[in-house]
Amino acid sequence: MPRLKAPQRRKQLMDVATKVFAKWGYNAATTAAIAEAAGVTEPILYRHFASKQDLFVAITRAMSEQTLRQWHGLTEDAPTATEKLRTIAREFPNHIRRLEDAYHVIHGALVTSRDRKVLNMMREHYTQIERFFSTIIIQGQSTGEFRADLDPKIPAWQLINTGIGYAMIALNLQQFDHLSVEGMIEFILRGLKA
Amino acid sequence: MPRLKAPQRRKQLMDVATKVFAKWGYNAATTAAIAEAAGVTEPILYRHFASKQDLFVAITRAMSEQTLRQWHGLTEDAPTATEKLRTIAREFPNHIRRLEDAYHVIHGALVTSRDRKVLNMMREHYTQIERFFSTIIIQGQSTGEFRADLDPKIPAWQLINTGIGYAMIALNLQQFDHLSVEGMIEFILRGLKA
Repeated sequence: MPRLKAPQRRKQLMDVATKVFAKWGYNAATTAAIAEAAGVTEPILYRHFASKQDLFVAITRAMSEQTLRQWHGLTEDAPTATEKLRTIAREFPNHIRRLEDAYHVIHGALVTSRDRKVLNMMREHYTQIERFFSTIIIQGQSTGEFRADLDPKIPAWQLINTGIGYAMIALNLQQFDHLSVEGMIEFILRGLKA
Repeated sequence: MPRLKAPQRRKQLMDVATKVFAKWGYNAATTAAIAEAAGVTEPILYRHFASKQDLFVAITRAMSEQTLRQWHGLTEDAPTATEKLRTIAREFPNHIRRLEDAYHVIHGALVTSRDRKVLNMMREHYTQIERFFSTIIIQGQSTGEFRADLDPKIPAWQLINTGIGYAMIALNLQQFDHLSVEGMIEFILRGLKA
């Protein structure tokens, strides 16, 4: 392996660790397997990440920030709250294919990990996503698009669950890939309508 | 370990394998680890289950059948389609706590496994659950409770995604356990209303 500069090495280790976590789940993945797949020794890996948890946190934070940056960009020009949600729905199948391994990492960690640092990072991620959707819903409530007598957290979580379900099912069980995210979002929008 | 009769041994192996799969995910769990945790040799395990896949299929089929039997029982006396869905929602947190390990097994397999037999069993499970909910929705459409201009698969999958999301998030990330399945189902029911 050629010697890489620190930022490139860090990026390479995160890319390789994403694949290893995605394949084996958080619990079963080892830093030894990650180092081997990256073509470095474990001491070199530890120079960049103090622990398996730290690697997971770095991967999940990068994915979380990328998601929010992309969604803010996608929605900033949409004229209504309804259109903001439709825009994200239309883009979601591409979004999730692009980040497929990262989604496997976070879902695999949710299923297997009981590590405090890992679960705190997951809470941080979902809190950010909940806040993003709640903001759109509150905006739609204030313009009169959406009914006001509803805790915004409920539709926010319907949107999150639709994303989790789509990522877990439609991507993995091809039989169900006719399921349309857009159809599901239209259904949620109907429940939101004032 | 005392010698068990074949059906008891089979049951014991399924219970132990459920814990091992739940902890490590499908990919990383080995028949050696399952046999060791059950206090038997691998040849004895193989006398009851030809492979790791077969163990997974037996566990998932048992959980799937138990779920459907319970839901049929819960809903048979409910007077309307709306009440059937509410009854399942009210019982769902208990249902999922009782079957927590089994849910971790199937979600862990969805995330990590690319095995054909495993994925076929998962498709069978979700097809059964989709059919169960679609039947209730079609019934509600025929009585005029639910709007008729809607593919029943869409709300059926909103219900499934709510279940997956609740199992993945509320059970694992305590910060979100105030999320009410009942609130989510009321939201879905509003979208269904004729």
